[in-house]
Amino acid sequence: MGATGYAGAELARLLCTHPEARLVAASSVSFEGKKLSDVYPNLFGVCDILLEDEDAVVAKSDVVFASLPHGLSEALAGKCVAAGKKLIDLGADFRLDSEEEYNKWYGKAYLRPDLHAKALYCIPELHRALYNGQPIIGNPGCYPTSVALGAAPLLRAKLVSGSVVVDSKSGVTGSGRGLSDTTHYPNCNEAFSAYKAAAHRHTPEMEQTLSALAESEVKVTFVPHLLPVNRGIETTMYFDLTADVTAEELHKLYADFYRGEKFVRVLPLGRAANIRDVKASNFCDIGVFVDAHAGKAVITSAIDNMVKGAAGQAIQNMNLMFGIKEESGLELVPPAF
Amino acid sequence: MGATGYAGAELARLLCTHPEARLVAASSVSFEGKKLSDVYPNLFGVCDILLEDEDAVVAKSDVVFASLPHGLSEALAGKCVAAGKKLIDLGADFRLDSEEEYNKWYGKAYLRPDLHAKALYCIPELHRALYNGQPIIGNPGCYPTSVALGAAPLLRAKLVSGSVVVDSKSGVTGSGRGLSDTTHYPNCNEAFSAYKAAAHRHTPEMEQTLSALAESEVKVTFVPHLLPVNRGIETTMYFDLTADVTAEELHKLYADFYRGEKFVRVLPLGRAANIRDVKASNFCDIGVFVDAHAGKAVITSAIDNMVKGAAGQAIQNMNLMFGIKEESGLELVPPAF
Amino acid sequence: MGATGYAGAELARLLCTHPEARLVAASSVSFEGKKLSDVYPNLFGVCDILLEDEDAVVAKSDVVFASLPHGLSEALAGKCVAAGKKLIDLGADFRLDSEEEYNKWYGKAYLRPDLHAKALYCIPELHRALYNGQPIIGNPGCYPTSVALGAAPLLRAKLVSGSVVVDSKSGVTGSGRGLSDTTHYPNCNEAFSAYKAAAHRHTPEMEQTLSALAESEVKVTFVPHLLPVNRGIETTMYFDLTADVTAEELHKLYADFYRGEKFVRVLPLGRAANIRDVKASNFCDIGVFVDAHAGKAVITSAIDNMVKGAAGQAIQNMNLMFGIKEESGLELVPPAF
Amino acid sequence: MGATGYAGAELARLLCTHPEARLVAASSVSFEGKKLSDVYPNLFGVCDILLEDEDAVVAKSDVVFASLPHGLSEALAGKCVAAGKKLIDLGADFRLDSEEEYNKWYGKAYLRPDLHAKALYCIPELHRALYNGQPIIGNPGCYPTSVALGAAPLLRAKLVSGSVVVDSKSGVTGSGRGLSDTTHYPNCNEAFSAYKAAAHRHTPEMEQTLSALAESEVKVTFVPHLLPVNRGIETTMYFDLTADVTAEELHKLYADFYRGEKFVRVLPLGRAANIRDVKASNFCDIGVFVDAHAGKAVITSAIDNMVKGAAGQAIQNMNLMFGIKEESGLELVPPAF
Repeated sequence: MGATGYAGAELARLLCTHPEARLVAASSVSFEGKKLSDVYPNLFGVCDILLEDEDAVVAKSDVVFASLPHGLSEALAGKCVAAGKKLIDLGADFRLDSEEEYNKWYGKAYLRPDLHAKALYCIPELHRALYNGQPIIGNPGCYPTSVALGAAPLLRAKLVSGSVVVDSKSGVTGSGRGLSDTTHYPNCNEAFSAYKAAAHRHTPEMEQTLSALAESEVKVTFVPHLLPVNRGIETTMYFDLTADVTAEELHKLYADFYRGEKFVRVLPLGRAANIRDVKASNFCDIGVFVDAHAGKAVITSAIDNMVKGAAGQAIQNMNLMFGIKEESGLELVPPAF
Repeated sequence: MGATGYAGAELARLLCTHPEARLVAASSVSFEGKKLSDVYPNLFGVCDILLEDEDAVVAKSDVVFASLPHGLSEALAGKCVAAGKKLIDLGADFRLDSEEEYNKWYGKAYLRPDLHAKALYCIPELHRALYNGQPIIGNPGCYPTSVALGAAPLLRAKLVSGSVVVDSKSGVTGSGRGLSDTTHYPNCNEAFSAYKAAAHRHTPEMEQTLSALAESEVKVTFVPHLLPVNRGIETTMYFDLTADVTAEELHKLYADFYRGEKFVRVLPLGRAANIRDVKASNFCDIGVFVDAHAGKAVITSAIDNMVKGAAGQAIQNMNLMFGIKEESGLELVPPAF
Repeated sequence: MGATGYAGAELARLLCTHPEARLVAASSVSFEGKKLSDVYPNLFGVCDILLEDEDAVVAKSDVVFASLPHGLSEALAGKCVAAGKKLIDLGADFRLDSEEEYNKWYGKAYLRPDLHAKALYCIPELHRALYNGQPIIGNPGCYPTSVALGAAPLLRAKLVSGSVVVDSKSGVTGSGRGLSDTTHYPNCNEAFSAYKAAAHRHTPEMEQTLSALAESEVKVTFVPHLLPVNRGIETTMYFDLTADVTAEELHKLYADFYRGEKFVRVLPLGRAANIRDVKASNFCDIGVFVDAHAGKAVITSAIDNMVKGAAGQAIQNMNLMFGIKEESGLELVPPAF
Repeated sequence: MGATGYAGAELARLLCTHPEARLVAASSVSFEGKKLSDVYPNLFGVCDILLEDEDAVVAKSDVVFASLPHGLSEALAGKCVAAGKKLIDLGADFRLDSEEEYNKWYGKAYLRPDLHAKALYCIPELHRALYNGQPIIGNPGCYPTSVALGAAPLLRAKLVSGSVVVDSKSGVTGSGRGLSDTTHYPNCNEAFSAYKAAAHRHTPEMEQTLSALAESEVKVTFVPHLLPVNRGIETTMYFDLTADVTAEELHKLYADFYRGEKFVRVLPLGRAANIRDVKASNFCDIGVFVDAHAGKAVITSAIDNMVKGAAGQAIQNMNLMFGIKEESGLELVPPAF
């Protein structure tokens, strides 16, 4: 659903080569009746699937991916659950536990609280143990994914205070396929600035996940910036250390925490995460630093916002839901350039 | 051989996921003893193969890919042939039939003329019928690949005169991993110019291939330009038509010529080839136009210079050499962005 | 008029520091009542001029610059002439001598043929001798400026045949401030393709100017491409030489032709024109090459599409109209990066 | 001195059009005997000054600008002072009051402590009152300029704690004209990462300036990032507020502090600083935000690293030294794109 948005296009790219899934239907309100490759010429001859209506998609699928404006996924989730289908929602509707927070940031109430009880918010590396057959998965936001994976070991180890500075930078695809002054080429090329400083909707999602990891309230000051590249999110996080930790100890903490994880790469000590090195892949790279003189830990993380930050993680969640090997269809090697 | 050059890095990326090939050894003069992923952090945890010396590579492999400065492949070819191994040379040493032309453009003689008789220059879509077990394949240059595929139908149909204008634009990876003023970021970002106008070494390769297609002499005026992007070559070719042809007829000629080819996409009439739509894939997209008032055919073609223009075509040639399905390991879906 | 378009913004930037002109009024249909710096934050505190209506601009000014959609400038020209004001039109309405061609490419008739008799099409380096007090100047198109300056010496010297291949590449500001899929950042970043191949509206303007220079019919095959940079046009032109000319002779021809011109730089032999080196300036750089083996001259030219290709040339024309030194307000040094 | 480095090229661009200064000599160790425009083709025909040796420059000038590797400016300063000439040093040698810090970060001792007593570190908006005829000015670093101007009002008002998080992003020209893997186009295009996290040499300079403003020790956690653009530094700073302040109050504090300053633009409330809007100009734009829920002030600042961060500020300091109007030669209007 919403196949002609950027997450939809990326899902199509990944599902095309998934060894255990098949893309059977796609829908788009704006382009119904056209082919997906009419909208995305990169897919010409590769994925010429017809864009149908919502009901066709629900009817034909075992699992539905929804990339819809917020507020539209609950109704769809109802249909899917009624029809015995699974739903992975790439929007914001199933991310927040607190209806009050949802209401505050999105200006809407929950229409179907019963469905929220059947939904799991899931970054697999952190939450897969909580999956027990829920038919709905709330796929995490792009920024929160980069933050949660970068912060988890420190928070779990209870080494830091409850206030975090999160300075993120996202490629332009994060703003989607819709036209805007902000994404008009001459406005964002050779440009760089913060936007929605300390006022971005992903803040409550971060605080929810980080507080759960820390088992105590964590406050996040989150400032996103628009980066003149197509893909990628780099997040630099600043934590007040509550204990003396060396960079070596911190690095070991991270390496141990993520040992065995296919998609999280703790970088060699001294190397910072670069969006270049995770491009078009499902990796999250993490670099760790200590500023001893100011008593802070500095964590850098990088993901591809459209893969680990959207379509790739959605497929990882699909694999989890269906008991498929988690990395299936996601063994994507990032190109060097 | 030459694994730390850009073509080598791209070969590693593609061989990693090839279902019927395995990367068993790699060599690099500059980085011997290091891992490939020390040089290319995108490969960290994915392809940590050790960089060994040349002999180790020849000994362990069934087929060797060489990305070496020109003049070094003949000796290596000798070793490979003697050891019963196959060689795919991504350099210039096995591209030109005429030693005189090689000497003129590269300033060297052929040391082993016997080996040239055992080598085939091969763009599979145009030359696969000529493959009959040669142990050496001269992998075509990036620019010449974009030109030959774009020009072939017109030349075979003998619809054009013997003089072609070729205006090509290449991404910066075409200049390789070596540092230079030209590829220093502030010099090539927000910049654009021609270079080696009418004096580029790929000209004789183009003339050789085009003349063979036309079965008569074709002269090429070739002007390459440096494009501020990482990947991709776009070529716009201008032919003097010797007969009245409509755009529809020209489009049909191309569609018929490439029917059944997996990697050449003749675009719908009116659409020009865009490097974006072939990125990281083995496709060559072709758009055809007619300028009736000036009596010219205008052909645009786009390839990824590192894939169809280098590593991808080399793997396609490997598949051909080993009787593997030609698209094996190359079913790469270009991302939308 | 049309001050919030890109040419308007660039005019404001240049007029701000012009020693003999003052920006007294500006209008915009879309932003009337706002400040120009509300739309262009670069001008905040520098040029906070209020956007008024058309009549206010005509009333307050000695000369009006119009950047309007085609078809709207004739009526404005009538008003200006009636009020004794001068008009410099940056649109297409006063560029073509032939109403038939205008009608063919723009789908409109001339409503006020009398005004066309009072208008001069003017690239100062080529046409300033024709200026004799006309109240209207048709400011040339960006592509045609790069072509006419690059072609003039060859055509005047009658050294080439009547058919020219023009391969141009333009930065994205050439498409203006209006939003479109084509100029959405993720669509044009890391992308490159031709558009309107052999079908662009600037073709008849080129043919008109080149034919006048050659004193015989010149046919132009013109293919523009969209370049992922903000500013600049690079044009590579291919001429069939009708006489043997060496590169040295060609270079001397150009150097002599443009001797004393402030804004045309004939580059040292062997150097191609680069949009980088003319950025934000009124220069046109020209590089000349000969392809002896194919009998062609290859000329490369580079301008800043928003300066020499629009606002800068308009100011140069204003200077001409008012008898001010032609380079006044235009002594802009291109930055190195 | 060091005229062929990026700061030198930018100084040449600005001095060319300065109404009260004239560029009389330039030197370069690497290119002595060539013209500056041989190295920077943008200057061809505009500034073809010959590159001479150091002594020629000292002899001919009233004031010398030095862009030299650290450690080389003291000797030069000695020569200049002896000859009664002024020196503006764009390197690090005259920035730090504490020889101990200099030694710690640069690994060298001060050879001429007497000269340091004759030098002033000077961001004119903050330090001009301290200028009383010193013959040497230590021109501030690019990052520290963006930080000091952004932090000054908050620190002077004693509204924040003594620990600041500084997350900066710089365009590639910040790395200079020298070639490196980091600045090779395919490595930094479509890439983004931190470097020298919490270990950059500009940290002590920031702490020195900020502590002086606050009149108490300020610790800075500084993480620079490399931004894929040519020019510009954006800095986002995070302060712990020690008192309740609204965004409106903070905005008024900044507007009052910088009232009358030509080069510092406090942006309308809600707008973040964008490097695009200060490009090629001497402006520093500042945007202010309050994160009430976490008790933090967030300040964003943007400068052009080569102008306000280097050559422009150097000329501003020259104007100060010679009693010229401070904005002379610096009334540069940033282009919109």
